[in-house]
Amino acid sequence: MAVNWNKNAAGRLVPDQVNGRHQHPYEGVAKYKPTGNKYGSPIVSCNDYPSDGNKIVPDLRVALLKAGLRDGVTISTHHHFRNGDLIAQQIFDIAHELGFRNLIWAPSASFDCHKTLIRYLEDGTIHHIEGSMNGALGEFTSMGKMKGIGILRSHGGRYQAIQDGELHIDIAVIAAPAADAFGNATGDRGPTACGLLGFALADSRFADRVIVVTDNLIPFPCVPWQIQGNDVDFVVIQEKIGLPEKIVSGTTEITKSPDRLFLADMTVHFCEEAGLIQDGFSFQTGAGGTSLAVAHYFAEKLREKQIKARFVRGGSNKFLVRMLEEGLTDYILDGQTFDLEGVRSMRENVNHVNTSPFTSYNYHGKGNFASMIDVAVLGATEIDINFNANVVTHSDGMLLHGIGGWQNCLFAKCTILPVPLFRDRIPVIRDEVTTICGPGELIDVIITERGIAINPLRTDLIERLKESNLPIRSIQSLKEEAKRICGRPEKASFTKNPVAVVKWVDGTLIDTIWQLDTE
Amino acid sequence: MAVNWNKNAAGRLVPDQVNGRHQHPYEGVAKYKPTGNKYGSPIVSCNDYPSDGNKIVPDLRVALLKAGLRDGVTISTHHHFRNGDLIAQQIFDIAHELGFRNLIWAPSASFDCHKTLIRYLEDGTIHHIEGSMNGALGEFTSMGKMKGIGILRSHGGRYQAIQDGELHIDIAVIAAPAADAFGNATGDRGPTACGLLGFALADSRFADRVIVVTDNLIPFPCVPWQIQGNDVDFVVIQEKIGLPEKIVSGTTEITKSPDRLFLADMTVHFCEEAGLIQDGFSFQTGAGGTSLAVAHYFAEKLREKQIKARFVRGGSNKFLVRMLEEGLTDYILDGQTFDLEGVRSMRENVNHVNTSPFTSYNYHGKGNFASMIDVAVLGATEIDINFNANVVTHSDGMLLHGIGGWQNCLFAKCTILPVPLFRDRIPVIRDEVTTICGPGELIDVIITERGIAINPLRTDLIERLKESNLPIRSIQSLKEEAKRICGRPEKASFTKNPVAVVKWVDGTLIDTIWQLDTE
Repeated sequence: MAVNWNKNAAGRLVPDQVNGRHQHPYEGVAKYKPTGNKYGSPIVSCNDYPSDGNKIVPDLRVALLKAGLRDGVTISTHHHFRNGDLIAQQIFDIAHELGFRNLIWAPSASFDCHKTLIRYLEDGTIHHIEGSMNGALGEFTSMGKMKGIGILRSHGGRYQAIQDGELHIDIAVIAAPAADAFGNATGDRGPTACGLLGFALADSRFADRVIVVTDNLIPFPCVPWQIQGNDVDFVVIQEKIGLPEKIVSGTTEITKSPDRLFLADMTVHFCEEAGLIQDGFSFQTGAGGTSLAVAHYFAEKLREKQIKARFVRGGSNKFLVRMLEEGLTDYILDGQTFDLEGVRSMRENVNHVNTSPFTSYNYHGKGNFASMIDVAVLGATEIDINFNANVVTHSDGMLLHGIGGWQNCLFAKCTILPVPLFRDRIPVIRDEVTTICGPGELIDVIITERGIAINPLRTDLIERLKESNLPIRSIQSLKEEAKRICGRPEKASFTKNPVAVVKWVDGTLIDTIWQLDTE
Repeated sequence: MAVNWNKNAAGRLVPDQVNGRHQHPYEGVAKYKPTGNKYGSPIVSCNDYPSDGNKIVPDLRVALLKAGLRDGVTISTHHHFRNGDLIAQQIFDIAHELGFRNLIWAPSASFDCHKTLIRYLEDGTIHHIEGSMNGALGEFTSMGKMKGIGILRSHGGRYQAIQDGELHIDIAVIAAPAADAFGNATGDRGPTACGLLGFALADSRFADRVIVVTDNLIPFPCVPWQIQGNDVDFVVIQEKIGLPEKIVSGTTEITKSPDRLFLADMTVHFCEEAGLIQDGFSFQTGAGGTSLAVAHYFAEKLREKQIKARFVRGGSNKFLVRMLEEGLTDYILDGQTFDLEGVRSMRENVNHVNTSPFTSYNYHGKGNFASMIDVAVLGATEIDINFNANVVTHSDGMLLHGIGGWQNCLFAKCTILPVPLFRDRIPVIRDEVTTICGPGELIDVIITERGIAINPLRTDLIERLKESNLPIRSIQSLKEEAKRICGRPEKASFTKNPVAVVKWVDGTLIDTIWQLDTE
């Protein structure tokens, strides 16, 4: 069937099918109405499972074969081990050795360590990736080398897609820092403790076959269980499922960069003047150095005002844990622990609650947590004058990042993007973004070192800040200033060959990523 | 379509349809192979839910109407409030007042307090019950007065039926002792704390619309959440959702009856001689006085042998809590708390774990906990010489009890039924049971005050007990002795009119319950 291209509600050209499956164009925020029913996996029976609950099989190879590994199946992994993951590589080594081809890899996120999978993308073991194509995988995709079209989804979009049957997972492989022989598994303890396993929840519930791999088998029952053994087919024991020193990666210290500290300070200052920091408020920040600084400054404000947050959202880290332990917040609702203090707190403190993309982000649920957050502080690679933002490609057109929870967090009551006005003399604020990941109407405030732009739709914020001494400016004037300093930004040069698509939180296509023109 | 009747693998006559839906006959233990996929409820969207997470509506009437209350819909409730439930009555009062008819009530269990619903069964507001028909509701059914055919399911069978789409729930109403406005709910705290809400899990996941009713609204987030707000449509606040003094009902003291104490003692004695009480073993007993005594004696044995259980299954009560706190068991895996000590322990002790019919009992899962238990001690109204047992009808043919978790627990490694040889001069052990609820091949040991019968299939147990001084006898000789004392038992007299069916754990029909012949 010929692929047809249509302009979606964001003005971007998107295909009506991807890898042979029909797609809906993005219709706008809260516009698309899904139909049909959620996916139900095949009904199984206890007849076919050992009555003593022992599901251990000799190794991952046996487990994959028993789970029905064959040409073309979709295999999922999760990213709780981040850059220390040892499982994805093994899966595709086995598949390659057995000669299986055209597999689809559906990770919840990919990391630098996964660049070794490029050879399997090259030789046809893996057909394409649905999830995220980070770093070298992104470059590989941007160069038009992946056989299929990559599909980028947010964390919530991944849950939505699996739940709705849009992304059917044949075999889920869940690496677990602690598990019993029945498959109950948890992530907050053991030599490779990583915090929680929430990103594997959809896979455990909806995949046809589920394999738990652990290096820390404990006698039944493994309590608490974040993954339920009743969803698990096979358990594999290995010596090591992740590299502990790389499991907890990412920035764990507050930035020392004066520019970034300035942005963080201005963000918190803005929130205070906008009246957002109230007793019982809530916020979510990311994991980078600037975000940590924002969290740190929020804590200072709470201490100063002698009030507390009702909850803060993780990615948790030692700064949030300190807030919890100091009584500056009632709860951490955590989607992913970023350091060992986060892991310890989750294990020890009942008010450090593990969540999942279902509770936090799934747009095809009966609400989710993301829209209930007062302030979300996020990043972006580019922002346009309509507040649309990009997080997946750089201005040179190269795909380099996954979406993570970014799209989902845009639904917060106030979404703030603190960004430098330019990076390496390339403007961040510009007429048009290379790829639209988030519609401008959900992005409320842009904070740069040279001024703050409030989305004109947020007349309430504009009103509240009208007496402020903060440098409130129009986004146009920020863009102009960037251009004055850096010159008119070059547009990335693309071929007409699509290499990936970006899904919106409701499963519709918000943008297309094109092969780079390297001529 | 004409209903056809077939003899199933238990030798019982069962219909090929019930209330217009096709049915499978029971094929034997572990014989029926389900096909098809699990039920997926309609895909919903955050578009249609308040972004601030506030789902409170003025009252239950409004919630029911918004949830689509109309003729013929199936409404579910759960039984965590046991005989103190105030919600089912309200639902059907509202439905009656609004003139809706032919509703199906799908409670997870019914209690004496629900006999007031008989008038709605009489006037056509309620067409039939799927769940349990206890006491007066059972009598009503046995007299042939219910409009439709009642369907009896075990706790696990209820989960299976809902999951598989065999029991479609239009509207689930979940009474919760603590909840937030988003619908996150828990049962272990608040003025009407009842322990856990696991029996409502299937409903929350698979019902089209879910209403949470609480008398204890707490600010978001309600932590822990046993029911996830992401599954909930509406929240209703009431002054009182249950009668605290009746919520925790059932026998909470060890029996003082010498006969029952003797049975309990003999049960534990048997387990010891059979080598079942080992370090790391597990057991499950029910809630009655004899069961409490068995648990108490098990604890004594563990203390004496200086060993401990790995886990015990609740219904929890103060005896199990004492075991946990004394270090005689690592965990309580609890399906239902039976007293306030159980509730307190569940709230305070992370090793007192709440479970659900999904984890514990669902036969259409990838295994469940029930088959991993070393010893299950259960009751029965009747047992036949092939070890088949009955728990729903009495020997006079009257339906009086639900199945509860009884069928599911039969999958334990050793299932023991301590029963008196006769009750009120009516033999418990007899040639044939009035209703087969559990196949004899899963029932290992019958313990009576006059002797112990081991199922001939359990040659291992027979071997282990062959030097025992315990009064091991054949079940035939026990039956004969009962007959000598009580005379030949009269058979219940039935009409040819079916009034209810009993499902096996896999959704097949194991028996039919017939209208009593009262001529």
